[in-house]
Amino acid sequence: MTRPLSALRADLAGIGLADDKATVKLKSRDFFWFSPILKPLLDDKRAELVALPRSKDEVIRIAAAAARHRVALTVRGGGTGNYGQAVPLAGGVLLDMGGLDRTVAVRAGAARCEAGARFLDIDRRLRDDVGSRWELRFHPSTRKQATIGGFVAGGAAGCGSCTWGQISDPGAVIAVEVVTVEERPRTLALAGRDVLKVLHAYGVNGIITEVEISLAPWQPWAERVLAFPSLATATRFGWALTAAEGIAKKEVAVFDAGIPRLLKRLAPLVPTGQAMAIVMVAEAQAAALAEMAADHGGSVVYARPAAAAEDAAFDGKGAMPPLYEYTWNHTTLHALKVEPSITYLQIRFPPGREVELVDKIERALAGEMLLHLEFQRRFGRVFVSGLPLLRYRSPERLDQVIAMVEGMGGAVSNPHSYVLDDAGWKRTDAPQAEFKTLADPFGLMNPGKLRAWPPKPAG
Amino acid sequence: MTRPLSALRADLAGIGLADDKATVKLKSRDFFWFSPILKPLLDDKRAELVALPRSKDEVIRIAAAAARHRVALTVRGGGTGNYGQAVPLAGGVLLDMGGLDRTVAVRAGAARCEAGARFLDIDRRLRDDVGSRWELRFHPSTRKQATIGGFVAGGAAGCGSCTWGQISDPGAVIAVEVVTVEERPRTLALAGRDVLKVLHAYGVNGIITEVEISLAPWQPWAERVLAFPSLATATRFGWALTAAEGIAKKEVAVFDAGIPRLLKRLAPLVPTGQAMAIVMVAEAQAAALAEMAADHGGSVVYARPAAAAEDAAFDGKGAMPPLYEYTWNHTTLHALKVEPSITYLQIRFPPGREVELVDKIERALAGEMLLHLEFQRRFGRVFVSGLPLLRYRSPERLDQVIAMVEGMGGAVSNPHSYVLDDAGWKRTDAPQAEFKTLADPFGLMNPGKLRAWPPKPAG
Repeated sequence: MTRPLSALRADLAGIGLADDKATVKLKSRDFFWFSPILKPLLDDKRAELVALPRSKDEVIRIAAAAARHRVALTVRGGGTGNYGQAVPLAGGVLLDMGGLDRTVAVRAGAARCEAGARFLDIDRRLRDDVGSRWELRFHPSTRKQATIGGFVAGGAAGCGSCTWGQISDPGAVIAVEVVTVEERPRTLALAGRDVLKVLHAYGVNGIITEVEISLAPWQPWAERVLAFPSLATATRFGWALTAAEGIAKKEVAVFDAGIPRLLKRLAPLVPTGQAMAIVMVAEAQAAALAEMAADHGGSVVYARPAAAAEDAAFDGKGAMPPLYEYTWNHTTLHALKVEPSITYLQIRFPPGREVELVDKIERALAGEMLLHLEFQRRFGRVFVSGLPLLRYRSPERLDQVIAMVEGMGGAVSNPHSYVLDDAGWKRTDAPQAEFKTLADPFGLMNPGKLRAWPPKPAG
Repeated sequence: MTRPLSALRADLAGIGLADDKATVKLKSRDFFWFSPILKPLLDDKRAELVALPRSKDEVIRIAAAAARHRVALTVRGGGTGNYGQAVPLAGGVLLDMGGLDRTVAVRAGAARCEAGARFLDIDRRLRDDVGSRWELRFHPSTRKQATIGGFVAGGAAGCGSCTWGQISDPGAVIAVEVVTVEERPRTLALAGRDVLKVLHAYGVNGIITEVEISLAPWQPWAERVLAFPSLATATRFGWALTAAEGIAKKEVAVFDAGIPRLLKRLAPLVPTGQAMAIVMVAEAQAAALAEMAADHGGSVVYARPAAAAEDAAFDGKGAMPPLYEYTWNHTTLHALKVEPSITYLQIRFPPGREVELVDKIERALAGEMLLHLEFQRRFGRVFVSGLPLLRYRSPERLDQVIAMVEGMGGAVSNPHSYVLDDAGWKRTDAPQAEFKTLADPFGLMNPGKLRAWPPKPAG
């Protein structure tokens, strides 16, 4: 242990700490190993010490000690990111926020939670509060593990985005509380548009301790798996469903015919050669959904009523996991357990030309790329993004495939990078950068995630 | 009284009937007098007898008697339509459905109501049911008076359409029960897409007795009035708010600077020369709304929290009526009480060119047309429709104005006609026509509302 770290440790008496190999390894990792590019780069990165605070006071003491002793500080929630957001590149302290998991306050339409509260736990508390039928607007497929603070710092969209957009949209996050990493840490309250200063910033500019977030009124979400004669028909259906204001929905995902066999319990449901959709709609509109699917040549191959779906999600009841555990990044997770060579990409489809690009990709990359589409609403329209499975060959081929997809009109956001500049911090006038100078004046937070810090002076 | 009517009357012993002049006049009218064209055409139209059934059995007896004696039958709900939908053109029986007003069944996300149930009463029951926090997805500005059956038969959109689309969208109406006008009436159940057979059909093809409708989960709806430097900035704000998935909303309306002074209690709130917006948003996103308004140069000039807004709507508390009573067709109602020469139009704005058309209309028809825009979501996008106030001069000038607006790119749906063919029954393959041959074989229902019935045989 380095000298500064020993000194820091002495300042943290009474706070949960761990430096055993197993804990340090576990807490130094996220799901970066989805990427064959990131895996060798991040596999051996370790913090030196894991801090496990249980209160905001303890977080403040840790921040103060890191600043005083100039020790690197990397914050993590559930560790469910895919880009190495939570992997400490320069050792130091790994700050696990999981112990700060209280729901601080609930009002109609909004909840204030500590950063380490997990999605499923928050929803469970909201459900079990007498008289409250609210739920989080979105959650990643890792609803059980992911924390609200981690999602705000390193996530974007998820189940629910087909109705509610993304976490960075106006009204989604109401307020955030941030502790600065200074010798005398300050607790800052960011509200309204100011929350953008720390959104999707990978925890490089302050420790998020509380999040106040807008809730959705709960609806009874029925689950359906549907089969379609082709990916094009399934895509048209997904678009039509997402566009249908009259059908309340929480999830719309569409999959290439090659994917169901990679998804364990879903494999036997979908006839070979058929494309698949997974949807969650309000029970009262399930019949309208089935009519819409039939219009596109589709049929329901699995139906679970809302009450049973909720039992599966909250209590693990039934043989079938909640269907959202086959969507978003869980699709990739299941598939690479079956075929270890599989990785993924992130593609934004051009509005109005989604099916055209689907067709082009299907033809050009048959057998190599299996499309998985997630349907969202954003900016007042339907928005299709892809998380396609890719049978990985080499870094060169990956670059080639990305170039091909971009040549065909898709916008690729490369998930095979841990650098924040590549993933949403592209604008040099972004508010996050300015806030870093204020909240992390010594540049200790999650070092290595920004390509150049401090930024060179202009001119 | 005609001979068939006397015979019919004899068949209806025990059913509430009225033929006094005042009741007959009251029940033979709707809000057609908004239109200076319709006013002289419909002003003296009267039924001969008003039937006031209290149960479905009574409705069936009335239908049977009308068929047996070949007496014209016109169905009405609250009589809040603007096109003379409920005005009997050929005398006969006026069937007032207001006595069938029970809520038959409520489940999570759907309610089944008798046709004569009024919007506010349904919402009140949903609210006061223990544990239920659901509400109707949309209501017209005449929430107090309008009935669910009347809305299905003669309405389309309303407050709530900025989130939920329109009544004809898939999933909005789950099922409808219809009694046929035959000597032995049948009770038909229409579900799913089949409900389109009787939607917006002005009651010419069967008596709607029950409606099962999807509900929205309630949210605490805060009310705001906002002032903007120009109609263009207010329009851009309205579009941006309607496009914002993260801000839950129930109403978005925008008004020319000349309108507030016509709206009684709103007049003192808005500075002279400023355009106005009326919005209802979820309380938790009210701050995000204010930020968005400021982006467009707007400011909040009136704010009422959700609880007080609900008290105003349900219990008439406070000096300010619910703000939705200044939107949709209520805008026209208030304005023509101040300026009797005022009437209105209905304009669909071309997507993506809304502000352009607003500017053109403002320039070309300054002082004659005062724009009032209602923002909706439909078909996966923002959809702007106008219910502009028009200072009426003559039928010729009205046609000229319609032609001008269409020449500038607006699609005008002429509200100055009581003919169904002009208002949504334009397609000869519409399912309503076929259903009429089945549900009203003698052609007795609401006669005169179809330009030609029975239709000429093809070829």
